[in-house]
Amino acid sequence: MRLPVRSFFSYSPFCKMAKPRTINIGFIGLGIVGQGVWKHIQRNRAELEHRLGARLVLHSAAVRDPAKKRPVRISRSRLCSDPLAVATDPKLDIVCELMGGTTLAKKATLAALRCGKIVVSANKALLCQSGEKIFQAAKKGGGHFFFEASVAGGIPIIKVIREGLVANRFDLIYGILNGTCNYILTRMDCEGLTFDETIKEARRLGYVEADESLDLDGWDTAHKAVILGYLAHGKWVKLRQVPVEGIRRITLEDIGWARDLGYKIKLLGIVSRDAKNGKVFVRVQPTLISKTKILSHVDDVFNGISVTGDIVGTTVHIGRGAGQDATASAVISDITDAVSTLLGKTSPPPAEGDFGGKTSVIPGAELADLSDISGHYYIRLSVVDKPGVLAEVSAVMAKLGVSIASVIQPKATLGKKATLILTTHSSNEKIIQETCRNLKRLKSVLNAPFLLRIADFKD
Amino acid sequence: MRLPVRSFFSYSPFCKMAKPRTINIGFIGLGIVGQGVWKHIQRNRAELEHRLGARLVLHSAAVRDPAKKRPVRISRSRLCSDPLAVATDPKLDIVCELMGGTTLAKKATLAALRCGKIVVSANKALLCQSGEKIFQAAKKGGGHFFFEASVAGGIPIIKVIREGLVANRFDLIYGILNGTCNYILTRMDCEGLTFDETIKEARRLGYVEADESLDLDGWDTAHKAVILGYLAHGKWVKLRQVPVEGIRRITLEDIGWARDLGYKIKLLGIVSRDAKNGKVFVRVQPTLISKTKILSHVDDVFNGISVTGDIVGTTVHIGRGAGQDATASAVISDITDAVSTLLGKTSPPPAEGDFGGKTSVIPGAELADLSDISGHYYIRLSVVDKPGVLAEVSAVMAKLGVSIASVIQPKATLGKKATLILTTHSSNEKIIQETCRNLKRLKSVLNAPFLLRIADFKD
Repeated sequence: MRLPVRSFFSYSPFCKMAKPRTINIGFIGLGIVGQGVWKHIQRNRAELEHRLGARLVLHSAAVRDPAKKRPVRISRSRLCSDPLAVATDPKLDIVCELMGGTTLAKKATLAALRCGKIVVSANKALLCQSGEKIFQAAKKGGGHFFFEASVAGGIPIIKVIREGLVANRFDLIYGILNGTCNYILTRMDCEGLTFDETIKEARRLGYVEADESLDLDGWDTAHKAVILGYLAHGKWVKLRQVPVEGIRRITLEDIGWARDLGYKIKLLGIVSRDAKNGKVFVRVQPTLISKTKILSHVDDVFNGISVTGDIVGTTVHIGRGAGQDATASAVISDITDAVSTLLGKTSPPPAEGDFGGKTSVIPGAELADLSDISGHYYIRLSVVDKPGVLAEVSAVMAKLGVSIASVIQPKATLGKKATLILTTHSSNEKIIQETCRNLKRLKSVLNAPFLLRIADFKD
Repeated sequence: MRLPVRSFFSYSPFCKMAKPRTINIGFIGLGIVGQGVWKHIQRNRAELEHRLGARLVLHSAAVRDPAKKRPVRISRSRLCSDPLAVATDPKLDIVCELMGGTTLAKKATLAALRCGKIVVSANKALLCQSGEKIFQAAKKGGGHFFFEASVAGGIPIIKVIREGLVANRFDLIYGILNGTCNYILTRMDCEGLTFDETIKEARRLGYVEADESLDLDGWDTAHKAVILGYLAHGKWVKLRQVPVEGIRRITLEDIGWARDLGYKIKLLGIVSRDAKNGKVFVRVQPTLISKTKILSHVDDVFNGISVTGDIVGTTVHIGRGAGQDATASAVISDITDAVSTLLGKTSPPPAEGDFGGKTSVIPGAELADLSDISGHYYIRLSVVDKPGVLAEVSAVMAKLGVSIASVIQPKATLGKKATLILTTHSSNEKIIQETCRNLKRLKSVLNAPFLLRIADFKD
């Protein structure tokens, strides 16, 4: 069969030169996250539009105080103070609800969905409270509700569970879903600070929500766990059905004793299903997790989620769970999916883009060569066991400007043959290869040097 | 605006009761992976079809020897030995190319794409070699090419990079992409076995490809790194432009010295881009990776990929990179996307399914209660510092059948007040809470017991 050809561009039947369609996006709330989304769309606009085959217009925004000065440049005429006006504006295709809260945000979300719009939301509290109503409104109104940013910020966990692992039934999903709690527990563990000392630091860094109970008593984690429960089992568990415990009672001593027992303490949101009776359970608990588990190494403000499916086994996904940029990344991913939905595109955008029908490579994707790559190195040499060899070797390296970071000279066991392990400071791939060739030429070096790279990635 | 309503069901304008459309799937190759896909679709058919709103028919398969006995039940009449016959069969909507190789598989893939079909493939070698041609053929013929299973098996990394993190430019992607090499390096590290001893074990377990060089010399990792390079930068790097090193020369001593220096050795596929000049570099290298990095804890046959985007920062994704089930999970995810494409669905399937227009919860998703949950526990008690307290406490626990796994009695520092740390063997949530209530009633217990869960998840 041949697939129906869908118009990626304007719908006008008279237009000969297909013009990319314009997608109007409205914001409800233009705080930290909203400004991040706006900023990054502006910055990567060429590439995004190139991939999508559509023009993105940041059309209007509802804010509490339109007169307030903002770091993001936006004309005063595009701002209003009425969320419902944006939600129902017939000129808008996509509405991003980024104001938070569960009263006005709910009204605006439902109004937009009833008009058949696509709503993109990071509002986990609202989704947890009114998920059923929201999806019903979307269905009835012909709209869609996208919520990648609501759980685990930058980690695309919604997409992973719902699409990437669609083949699976999920017996167990658990994760570190609140970066603030993880930051506090990590600081206590690594620096021996008490809860009270750490919370002061977290407040200073702006890591704690205005309503501290959301973070510290586990409610934020609970909202996210309820959403994961829905994704995994199609069921909205009520918040009052979820046992929720926070981290306030954990002492420095608990963390120390847990360490002695081979564990770290992490606040986990857990969605489990009994394999025998199929019953689902959602809970939030500070948990001792073995140091042999990957999630025990997920520290600071990072989130991490372990997803166990009956086919795939366990996959683990780690990344920043909050903050302007990570959340913006998730919101923009939803906006992209929303644009595909609006354009009737049914497959993901091609990597090389498809703008105006011409296939082209993303600008700037030239190939590097060896001289462009640098890093730290590990060199193993098999050498003659006699004095002065290290001096010879280091002279060769010094000549090429390769700086030695450490030397290990294990005791020789094979009579005349010894091993020499060198690590280097940052050097160039081309130069290090030349160094190895020169070392090989030394009489005291018995084999071709064995070179390994040391990861010094800035990630 | 109102979204165009698309028919999720049969296209017949006369049909009053919308009947789910039937999707015919053909297989080219019915080996380990093909049989896994077939098996899991059969097993989860009700749920999958429920979510998709379509009937999946495993229509026919091309195999080397149709007469051979197979664990998967399939009628002889559905088998043939001609890949091209399946590739071009007008009755088929989706063709899964799971035969491997780059000659016949290439012919069949291109033929199917030219007929406008959707091809689902796990063939990283073919994609690496002929990616450009394949996507051109798909574009020209109106077909699609899906390849989630080609990189990192069960981890939906293609979807994560291409859709979930679409907002980002990727300065760095690196990962453990070959489970066999990771298994060998982990065994050497943990058990002090030499490369030769470990490879024998790996062969015995069937972990090594028939062509061992693919795994051990890094070529399989290179195929996957090239695909990641395409996804991140829209560019097909030629295999001959990729410096590729394997793991054969790594000795037990290298692993030991690396350990002393604070590193583990992992074979990495690396796709980097120079932030300054935008140049892209793809390479495969055994690399010393610091024990502070999450990927250094990804052991055995697991794969792990670190993806650094300019907006989201670093996300890490870990899971099984090979094997019948993990690969089948990825192939089924692609089949699901293919079905959405065929049905013109432009948003992911709802969690609660949408079969015949009725919204319903996945069968079996009942809520559990406390008595259904069991696990290991950590209990901190503040007790009077006098002899006999432990006896009292253990008597209370024994009465409820809670078995103590360990006791820590730190030296008392506050005169009459001491702390007691207990861990339990597996117990029931309801019973442990009753235990805590009973402990609180003891005169020698000064505060409410502090209870933490110990993760004993089977993941």
